[in-house]
Amino acid sequence: MTDRKEFRDLAPPERAREAIDSLDLDPDPETVPLTDASGRVLAERIDAGLDVPGFDRASLDGYALRARDTFGADEADPARLGIVGAVHAGEEPDVEVGEGEAVEISTGAVMPPGADAMVMVEKTDEENDEVLVRTSVAPGDSVMLAGADVAAGERALGPGTRLTPREIGLLSALGVDEVPVRGTPRVGIISTGDELVRPGNGLHSERGQIYDVNSYTAASAVEEAGGEAVTYPHAGDDYGEMARLLTTAAEECDLVLSSGSTSASAVDVIYDVIEERGELLLHGVAVKPGKPMLIGRMSEGDDASAYVGLPGYPVSALTIFRTFVAPAIREAAGLPEPRTATVTGTMARRERYAEGRLRYMPVGLVTDADGETLVYPVDKGSGATTSLVEADGVVAVDPDTDYLAEGESVAVELFSPDVRPPSLFGVGEDDPLLSRLLDRLRNPRYLAVGSRQGLRRLRDGTPDVAVTAGPVEREVEAEPLGEWRREWGLVVPDGNPEAVVGLADLVDRDLRFVNRTTDSGLRTSLGNAAADLAEERGVDRREVVDAVDGFDLAVRAHESPARKVRAGQADAGLGLRATAETLGLGFVPLGDQRTVVHANPDRVGKERVADLAAALSDAGDLAAGLPGYDA
Amino acid sequence: MTDRKEFRDLAPPERAREAIDSLDLDPDPETVPLTDASGRVLAERIDAGLDVPGFDRASLDGYALRARDTFGADEADPARLGIVGAVHAGEEPDVEVGEGEAVEISTGAVMPPGADAMVMVEKTDEENDEVLVRTSVAPGDSVMLAGADVAAGERALGPGTRLTPREIGLLSALGVDEVPVRGTPRVGIISTGDELVRPGNGLHSERGQIYDVNSYTAASAVEEAGGEAVTYPHAGDDYGEMARLLTTAAEECDLVLSSGSTSASAVDVIYDVIEERGELLLHGVAVKPGKPMLIGRMSEGDDASAYVGLPGYPVSALTIFRTFVAPAIREAAGLPEPRTATVTGTMARRERYAEGRLRYMPVGLVTDADGETLVYPVDKGSGATTSLVEADGVVAVDPDTDYLAEGESVAVELFSPDVRPPSLFGVGEDDPLLSRLLDRLRNPRYLAVGSRQGLRRLRDGTPDVAVTAGPVEREVEAEPLGEWRREWGLVVPDGNPEAVVGLADLVDRDLRFVNRTTDSGLRTSLGNAAADLAEERGVDRREVVDAVDGFDLAVRAHESPARKVRAGQADAGLGLRATAETLGLGFVPLGDQRTVVHANPDRVGKERVADLAAALSDAGDLAAGLPGYDA
Repeated sequence: MTDRKEFRDLAPPERAREAIDSLDLDPDPETVPLTDASGRVLAERIDAGLDVPGFDRASLDGYALRARDTFGADEADPARLGIVGAVHAGEEPDVEVGEGEAVEISTGAVMPPGADAMVMVEKTDEENDEVLVRTSVAPGDSVMLAGADVAAGERALGPGTRLTPREIGLLSALGVDEVPVRGTPRVGIISTGDELVRPGNGLHSERGQIYDVNSYTAASAVEEAGGEAVTYPHAGDDYGEMARLLTTAAEECDLVLSSGSTSASAVDVIYDVIEERGELLLHGVAVKPGKPMLIGRMSEGDDASAYVGLPGYPVSALTIFRTFVAPAIREAAGLPEPRTATVTGTMARRERYAEGRLRYMPVGLVTDADGETLVYPVDKGSGATTSLVEADGVVAVDPDTDYLAEGESVAVELFSPDVRPPSLFGVGEDDPLLSRLLDRLRNPRYLAVGSRQGLRRLRDGTPDVAVTAGPVEREVEAEPLGEWRREWGLVVPDGNPEAVVGLADLVDRDLRFVNRTTDSGLRTSLGNAAADLAEERGVDRREVVDAVDGFDLAVRAHESPARKVRAGQADAGLGLRATAETLGLGFVPLGDQRTVVHANPDRVGKERVADLAAALSDAGDLAAGLPGYDA
Repeated sequence: MTDRKEFRDLAPPERAREAIDSLDLDPDPETVPLTDASGRVLAERIDAGLDVPGFDRASLDGYALRARDTFGADEADPARLGIVGAVHAGEEPDVEVGEGEAVEISTGAVMPPGADAMVMVEKTDEENDEVLVRTSVAPGDSVMLAGADVAAGERALGPGTRLTPREIGLLSALGVDEVPVRGTPRVGIISTGDELVRPGNGLHSERGQIYDVNSYTAASAVEEAGGEAVTYPHAGDDYGEMARLLTTAAEECDLVLSSGSTSASAVDVIYDVIEERGELLLHGVAVKPGKPMLIGRMSEGDDASAYVGLPGYPVSALTIFRTFVAPAIREAAGLPEPRTATVTGTMARRERYAEGRLRYMPVGLVTDADGETLVYPVDKGSGATTSLVEADGVVAVDPDTDYLAEGESVAVELFSPDVRPPSLFGVGEDDPLLSRLLDRLRNPRYLAVGSRQGLRRLRDGTPDVAVTAGPVEREVEAEPLGEWRREWGLVVPDGNPEAVVGLADLVDRDLRFVNRTTDSGLRTSLGNAAADLAEERGVDRREVVDAVDGFDLAVRAHESPARKVRAGQADAGLGLRATAETLGLGFVPLGDQRTVVHANPDRVGKERVADLAAALSDAGDLAAGLPGYDA
């Protein structure tokens, strides 16, 4: 094996924070047009450069006059003033108000010289060239004096102010059209790993290629934290090119991120560049999942660039980013910690731990009927990307915590401030009609774990609903919300070239078959069909299934067997008529399955479960165009 | 007067909501690159187009082998297998694993044919060309099967999903590089009003011009709600041009906004265009401040555009926008109501109401020493733009609510989700050193209401601190946090052309003077100086001040008298040496003032008040370069 750098002395998390705090990510301030300033942060104080309003301003429609001319006036005995002119908003007065005179004036207009107050039109009547004022007014009435709103020289907004619509409004009132704001930290993202391919390019699975996930997750998270993500081209396995890219990124950015390469040589290149240009500050943090984390400086002085290496697994990378990197980017951008980044909930069940180091445990959230947030661990391990969307955030579990009790209150650090707990949490069979049903709900979460697993989880009490297809082997207390029927059988190549008629062909002939996993309701129905065939033939069930080439070749998802048939890797696969027709394949029907949506009895009162039940009453509609469906 | 459309039959707020709901703001969906998709909302369901991983994948570094070759192996009796090759990540295996054979394999690499499991390197030793396996493994161990993470055909993300970093990660894993997202509603903003000028252009105050505030506030609020703001050129007083712009905006946008014009003719033009192209749905809503609100449709069918007319006062416009328009834009963009848009607090004092219609009362927020949020009404009236930044949001007060009691719990609808209540709330004298002090705090709010008003408000209990300058006439229970001295006197033109020596010159000579309002501590000191002069001369104080031309010409802000001197409108103004020097003017000293920061005794324990006290210990530093300051 290649010699690997080992992470034996893990730094405590506080040291990682100190190391990151010691880095300089601060960008230079910049000036942006007012129209682009929303959401930015003021770099310096703004004092008012002018009075607002810049003139004594009429607050209403009415008449400008001398207050003392109205003294004693009332409804019965109005003051009678001669109208000597008019001023509208946006006009310079061309008339002066003398004793016993008035000038018609519009809201926002400049008070004419000589006038010291105004009366609103509703308290007056016009008669020929005179106005009858039916109230007495005091000097200054209904006039906003110049500078009364903001006076020139006043402190208007302080440095560090986040510019929301209201601050934008004040700046426009002051005539500010260019705003000095804090710069946006530039964060370079370097993709390492020979096997990574950028989305949009073809993938050679036979060579072990996978799409690059962490670069895109990181870029999105950088932008969410207030940084500007700069994605560098993928260097592939050219280490010279990687060194060149790292150097360029260090020169162009305030921070450079990469995520754990599976390739030891790539890590060596990163080490070399950091050590040549700056220094490695920290190497491995005593948090799960922080073992492969790197913190360093890639250059010195004014053009300093920081470097952070994230773990390779997507959930781990996002966890470390959220915990250590995002706060540093926000700080550099001058943005506060988002208020929505943490929610409180109670553990849905007991969870044991004895990690011996701080652990950020990925968790999912679900709301119970009372609106209380329940928290459950999500640990798919093995770097599954689906963990990204099945977990909502992490709970920090102390090294000395042995277990979290059911009902214990925990703080969940959401992966993003914009993460919303799902409105509905379902588990169970994968099904095309169900997919359409879920499309009608806002923000549901559904894990296609199969009928059997679904019921098991429903019994454990975490999900709101479980969906089963076919015979249900175990009794679980649940409320049926709705159901439909679907036709299942064998998916075969288009035109059914092998003229498969039924299960017996798989048993008796040399045909390659692809099955589903035992969690699937389809598999249960197929097992029953095999048992029936065995009984018919008077043999043991095992004898029948052993005779099927591929009965144990079980794949997880509902389209997978059909896709293997389409790819020419099998002669028949277990599946639905709907799938066969969607993929342009042939179909040999073996039966019909009831597909049932079961509600967790504790959640029947939950609003979104009621929404689901309502949507289910439309199942007939949802079945339209789905071959082999009946609802 | 011009005949004005009157708003006699105000629609109930529910009808306004219905009218807005009946409008079609929905933009067409669009396709964006994955790198631009963060924060967007999926327009349609994304099913997985491929298996992830696309091959059976090694989860660890180690050896791929046949599980049955390791059965029975342990530390003491390892299995011994011949190493026949190696597979690294990103490589196609060029070797098959036979009985008794193993292949070196890296994390993420493709499992070679023949192998059905792997053993991690830590459980092995290499000896020449053989590997000693010191544990037994089961088939499938440490292998992630093709499609185990995501299987082709599975429902990956539903329509309406907001794309945060984690969803971006899943999409990249699926190789999706172009994402179908909901379109961004285009919102056209029309500026009406002859008196409005765009920031960046010169302002003719003598003609009553003011800078356009609502267009910028609205544009920023539109973007915050998830829309794209399109600002149209200002039509000024050319009504033909305004009609043309409205028509263009209706054709180009999903929604057109304008805000209450003070000009009746402008309103007529809007009416004409709406009625020619569509229909007016609603005219005036029974909420304060919704009286001038207009809702209409500017065209029919597919190219429908909605129209909403907002009130003219900035806080009113933002309130109506937030209440009625923002939800419609968010809905059209597919975005959820932000969780941070509402906070709960308790009324800081009793507030009477008998409005008879629903009122959105502008309020400010302040936190007490226990972290509890207190809510106080902000009502500057007269369309003050400073209300924009002095209020944090609104409280909806029912028509039948007579009063809100002190301590009553209220829900505050923040003007923006990003609005943060100030960390510190101060009131009192305006002062240049204080401005520098405030610059050192994060997100303070300071209202320069003068020393006298400041103390009054501190006594009422709402602010955290009050700042006074000069003699304090009233006793208020308060904790002094710190103080400095500042030199005050008469600001005169540069070079002191009138050779002013002191107050007596203003009394005895024909000089134009500008004073400060009676709330100002400077005014109190000047009043005392006038009393001293009167006593010296053995006359009544009133006689002295009446002899000063302009003693009653009082302006609100600390630089205002000096600015009038600089503009040639006065021969002397009340002010500070620091102001005179900043503005390049002359200065005649009259005395020194103690400027004191007083803390509300209930807030001494508040963290930000302690921060202020700490910052005050640096007052000497803050005074550096401020002429006439001593701290």
